[in-house]
Amino acid sequence: MSTGRSRLVVVGADAAGMSAASVARRMLGHDRLEIVAFDRGGYTSYSACGIPYLVGKEVEDVDDLIARRPAQFEEMGIDVRLGHEVLGVDVAGREVRVRDLGSGRERNEGYDQLLLATGAVPVRPAVPGIDALGVHGVQTLDDGLALRSWLAEVHPRRAVVVGAGYVGLELAEAMCAWGVQPTVVERGPAPMGGLDADMGKLVADAMVGFGMTVLTDETVTGIEVDAAGRARAVVTDQRSIPADVVILGLGVRPAADLAADAGIGVGRSGAIAVNPRMATDTDGVWAAGDCAQKRHLVSGEAVAIALGTYANREGRTAGANIAGGDASFPGVLGTAVSKICSLEVARTGLGEADAAAAGFDPVGVAVDSTTRAGYYPGAKPIRVKLVADAAGSRLLGAQIVGEEGAAKRIDVLATALWSEMTIPEMINLDLSYAPPFSPLWDPVLIAVRKTAERLGVDPARAQPRGRQLP
Amino acid sequence: MSTGRSRLVVVGADAAGMSAASVARRMLGHDRLEIVAFDRGGYTSYSACGIPYLVGKEVEDVDDLIARRPAQFEEMGIDVRLGHEVLGVDVAGREVRVRDLGSGRERNEGYDQLLLATGAVPVRPAVPGIDALGVHGVQTLDDGLALRSWLAEVHPRRAVVVGAGYVGLELAEAMCAWGVQPTVVERGPAPMGGLDADMGKLVADAMVGFGMTVLTDETVTGIEVDAAGRARAVVTDQRSIPADVVILGLGVRPAADLAADAGIGVGRSGAIAVNPRMATDTDGVWAAGDCAQKRHLVSGEAVAIALGTYANREGRTAGANIAGGDASFPGVLGTAVSKICSLEVARTGLGEADAAAAGFDPVGVAVDSTTRAGYYPGAKPIRVKLVADAAGSRLLGAQIVGEEGAAKRIDVLATALWSEMTIPEMINLDLSYAPPFSPLWDPVLIAVRKTAERLGVDPARAQPRGRQLP
Repeated sequence: MSTGRSRLVVVGADAAGMSAASVARRMLGHDRLEIVAFDRGGYTSYSACGIPYLVGKEVEDVDDLIARRPAQFEEMGIDVRLGHEVLGVDVAGREVRVRDLGSGRERNEGYDQLLLATGAVPVRPAVPGIDALGVHGVQTLDDGLALRSWLAEVHPRRAVVVGAGYVGLELAEAMCAWGVQPTVVERGPAPMGGLDADMGKLVADAMVGFGMTVLTDETVTGIEVDAAGRARAVVTDQRSIPADVVILGLGVRPAADLAADAGIGVGRSGAIAVNPRMATDTDGVWAAGDCAQKRHLVSGEAVAIALGTYANREGRTAGANIAGGDASFPGVLGTAVSKICSLEVARTGLGEADAAAAGFDPVGVAVDSTTRAGYYPGAKPIRVKLVADAAGSRLLGAQIVGEEGAAKRIDVLATALWSEMTIPEMINLDLSYAPPFSPLWDPVLIAVRKTAERLGVDPARAQPRGRQLP
Repeated sequence: MSTGRSRLVVVGADAAGMSAASVARRMLGHDRLEIVAFDRGGYTSYSACGIPYLVGKEVEDVDDLIARRPAQFEEMGIDVRLGHEVLGVDVAGREVRVRDLGSGRERNEGYDQLLLATGAVPVRPAVPGIDALGVHGVQTLDDGLALRSWLAEVHPRRAVVVGAGYVGLELAEAMCAWGVQPTVVERGPAPMGGLDADMGKLVADAMVGFGMTVLTDETVTGIEVDAAGRARAVVTDQRSIPADVVILGLGVRPAADLAADAGIGVGRSGAIAVNPRMATDTDGVWAAGDCAQKRHLVSGEAVAIALGTYANREGRTAGANIAGGDASFPGVLGTAVSKICSLEVARTGLGEADAAAAGFDPVGVAVDSTTRAGYYPGAKPIRVKLVADAAGSRLLGAQIVGEEGAAKRIDVLATALWSEMTIPEMINLDLSYAPPFSPLWDPVLIAVRKTAERLGVDPARAQPRGRQLP
């Protein structure tokens, strides 16, 4: 970086882009760094994870989801231009081509540093009718508002959610708020593909208990469209399901086309390849957030996982480095949590299949317990599943399905994974206990003990590593 | 141990004693090991931590607190003799002196291995009137039942709880269930002596909000007793407080007299000194549970902490070793959690004062946040305080005060402490996020960031240790 004034162009004004801009600005004043951020959409820095709750009316006011508005960034000396789409990058000339979506005018903007924070786009299956009215992908705040308007307008009686991932299921719950019991269609054998099938089955059973219809191992082949161009049914390889609204919950893919078209390296995951400093393979070009590839800390694989928490941290890392700092983002565990009606679901690290694919010899052990002492009012069921490596007893991953108070326990296991703890090292973990919070043995510790037994480590004979009295 | 049949005598048939007996029996059959357990009281293996909820009528049936009854142990080939007090130990002759409290008869019982699991006794201040009717220490299930009977009988209008530790506050809440707003008298400057004063102040404020009277920096000097021998007021160094029932919540001290009288080593903490295998300094004598000394894993100090979770684990460790195994119990972090009305309180590791006393250079940082995304219904306040070492940035302890969903987060910090993590290593911890469970940055991570800033580690420039991409 030169010591004079340089120009940072940010493509995408959401979590990653604006975190980067804010950190860079805090480190370098306006006299050193000009910052311009372009975004196709109409909002900055909003909670994408809150969109299902906006659709489900648990959050009434869209303003509640907006962390900061353009005016606040302007005050920080960050020039935010909404309604502007970046069409291309000329890495040799250090320019981007930008279209003002309002006026339709295009122009070139030069940069010294470029941050790609283009996010992700919802997966849309290439089937007939997918672009019909009433078919909604829900990725941006604009998407969420469009869906909410549609629901208010058509008062649907029948909703079909395509795909049973986290967002799909959260949107299925949101349909209940509109008085609609949705049908969820999933191509795989169980909802929540990130869970092992046995845990996914628990989720499916609970959804049926909530009055939803869950169709698994069933693939959508098209959308039936009426004369007015509106979706009227979802067609699968097995049936036709009438629908007044169709919601795509098929997950997202990294928005890496801009990078790929410019010759910036894209990884095996489909996301833009970056090093731990968030630099791409192209001089002066950085990437952060859903569009950027991550390292999975257990498998070592390059992955694309779209999560606001990562976007925020990667943005901060990129911003610090752009401003001349030396920050790095080590990688991810894929920790995630979700609520569907009264059910809580969480995961971290690797499932059994992923662990086997990554070359481990996984042992999976699930235990049932309660969230509080069994005798204490409000004790709810919880199932904790651990995956550990038969060779070396290292914890590889964990999954939790339960009711109120269950899911946040995943953070204990994420912290253990982060420290590469083995199952024997976890047996005597000093977790908190009181009857309103846990059985005497926290469900996490019960799972640890059972896993130790399955691994052939008898807890009664275990010699916990480290931390011995001298 | 001989290869023939030997005899294990267990003194105390609660968590530690019966965990040990069960593990030892699982490892050695009746032909190898005879097991006899004596207990002064009338119950085995009950949840002592559940007693406040029994008193407070949240748990109606005393049976709910009893994990296992003598008959179940008999089936395992463990001879449990309730209503039997062990009066003395002859370590040279390998005998204990036992009194049958029913018949009053005494006899000697020989042992090859002796496990002292004598628990703890409530601290009773040596003030006039302390033995009056209506003054209740609450340590055993029998104590709890006696208090409940007393409450049902006298229908108290005025209750005074002496001491504002965990059990004192839980019992103060229990009084509310009897329609009594208690007065809590605490000698120290704030409730919950295990918390730093700033966090304790939050607890005191909440208690006042619940309608309780909290008197701090005030010492009990006596109990006024009426003509019938019943307590009628608690006298302090500042006033006389009318009371129909007086509850002692002053904590407990290890029941180590039996050991001390027999010449078995007692540590500085007042608890029986043990090594990590739970062996005392006397051949063939083991100790586990509230009566046994523990190693604090952060300070390295010998401590006495009475907690059911430790009792259970130490019992298992002792049992395994008595049966010829090689298990060890590494030590404790002092993790604890409690609920007082709608308030949740938790701690782990060292507070600021303890950390300074242990030779660290502690920095304490508290942050306020919410348990869920601020915009999500049911978001409650949470304050997280971290204590870290200015030299080396190691996490030393944590405290949490908040409402529903706050306190169990302490387990993440206990796991980080267990792994001796530094604050910079925790900045990118992959904890779960979804609006019903957490703000985008979990309160724990906000506290980590603020602590890093206070330590002079700029998170935007931090190079997290370990876990770098190659």
